[in-house]
Amino acid sequence: MSTSTTATAGSARTEFLQVKDATYAYRRIGGGFRRPLLCLQHFAGTLDNWDPAVADPLGDGREVILFDSAGVGRSSGNVPTTVAGMAAHALQFLDGLCLTSCDVLGFSLGGMVAQQMALERPSSIHRMILVGTAPRGGEDIMHLEKPSLARHLGDPALKGYAVLQKIFFAPTSSSQAAGGAFIERLARRTEDLDPASGPDVMAAQIAAFRDWEQSLGARFADLKGISQPALVVNGVHDEMIPVSNSYRLAENLPNAVLLVYPDSGHGSLFQYHESFTRHAAAFLTSDSPLAPY
Amino acid sequence: MSTSTTATAGSARTEFLQVKDATYAYRRIGGGFRRPLLCLQHFAGTLDNWDPAVADPLGDGREVILFDSAGVGRSSGNVPTTVAGMAAHALQFLDGLCLTSCDVLGFSLGGMVAQQMALERPSSIHRMILVGTAPRGGEDIMHLEKPSLARHLGDPALKGYAVLQKIFFAPTSSSQAAGGAFIERLARRTEDLDPASGPDVMAAQIAAFRDWEQSLGARFADLKGISQPALVVNGVHDEMIPVSNSYRLAENLPNAVLLVYPDSGHGSLFQYHESFTRHAAAFLTSDSPLAPY
Repeated sequence: MSTSTTATAGSARTEFLQVKDATYAYRRIGGGFRRPLLCLQHFAGTLDNWDPAVADPLGDGREVILFDSAGVGRSSGNVPTTVAGMAAHALQFLDGLCLTSCDVLGFSLGGMVAQQMALERPSSIHRMILVGTAPRGGEDIMHLEKPSLARHLGDPALKGYAVLQKIFFAPTSSSQAAGGAFIERLARRTEDLDPASGPDVMAAQIAAFRDWEQSLGARFADLKGISQPALVVNGVHDEMIPVSNSYRLAENLPNAVLLVYPDSGHGSLFQYHESFTRHAAAFLTSDSPLAPY
Repeated sequence: MSTSTTATAGSARTEFLQVKDATYAYRRIGGGFRRPLLCLQHFAGTLDNWDPAVADPLGDGREVILFDSAGVGRSSGNVPTTVAGMAAHALQFLDGLCLTSCDVLGFSLGGMVAQQMALERPSSIHRMILVGTAPRGGEDIMHLEKPSLARHLGDPALKGYAVLQKIFFAPTSSSQAAGGAFIERLARRTEDLDPASGPDVMAAQIAAFRDWEQSLGARFADLKGISQPALVVNGVHDEMIPVSNSYRLAENLPNAVLLVYPDSGHGSLFQYHESFTRHAAAFLTSDSPLAPY
């Protein structure tokens, strides 16, 4: 990988990588000599959903790689109906880039994929940041039929990014104001855009959530096998993947620091982007084998 | 207050302040122009129980004030049997120092006193760090009769600080090693020591814990009235005041960041003193009205 890219989330052109019979869309931001950071996206999200206020600062000193999994955005194929299927694509993408080790920022669904990658091929994952996500066997994961979510998702007045302001942020004036700033930042990119995710993408990803809610064997036992340093982050009022799931991650991952933000929901990393990127950079640049930074 | 003190936890001489009919023992560490940091101690702890690896770095740029509440160490009077009684003494001590505003680091019992101070006189408390503590109405607070604690507290072989290695740290080799280093650091101070707390001190403090477990009105409703920025810290395997109490603090305080450490117990701040003091300093020096730092 080049270490001289200086693109931002707003300016990075979309690139395409063919690996075996798959073509993956991705963007590279920033650059430097630190280990690359692979960013794994949330339910229905594409490359365009990465907040420049998060992605750009993380690109200071390292390459940040935004990735469309199979069937999402302009990547080929169908969306897998399991997290394991998505993890297989992400690992194949790393192989195609000839990256033998990277750090990972997994948000929501992406955090589940990150855990699965760490379990399947530990050598590829150095440090993990798991935001607004859940362990396998977690509770109340992305139940979009809940009234607190359905009333926004079914509101025809909320077009484009506007629904994200409602469902990623807490129903307080301060959090909603941060949500407004977030969608304004996303909207600044107007060219070389991914197509928005359609019903097929969402149905397959929801199937993956339903599967992820089922424990395989003793609940949370698989987390003991993830020894990489992890930073688990959430907003205390996350309606999409409640903060209790972050508690279970921190309690069962052997090497995880938990950071929870006030007055915020699923999108805490966007609401507190200055704090989040400061913590994330400190965590990622630590040379300790332990998670505390 | 002088801002030129440069004493360390190991060298600071004990000072005495008379306020009304009470005499309070305290020590001052470090110095600088930042707001002073009042440190409120744990069950049975005295001035000698502050880890220099925590207190000294915090004294870089500010005065750190270690405080013996009434009836503890060489402070006069009897130990109150309620947290409110202890908070009244701490506020009277601030009055005696002519400090109209300070930051507070409250550990365990001290964190309860800090919450009570913030409720009773909000103007005196600027930012709060609450470590290994619980809200009023919290659960499983300092039940020393639990087998996991009683087996150490009743072990005649564990003399002096040695019992703290067992009850403040997790039962893993890594956490116990950190506990060994902690008690070695405490033992370096050999002069001008406080008397150890006796059964009367402990009985009164335990009575205060039992009272604190009882909600007054709706559970955790009082926390909504504490608007100061707070940093809530715990070890994920705290046996003395379980981490669930820190979850409830972060969920109900309107302006709190939660930081939870892995592989650690009640004494997470001592185990990860480098990380803790880095986070604490960043939190305390923030000039935002919000807790995220």
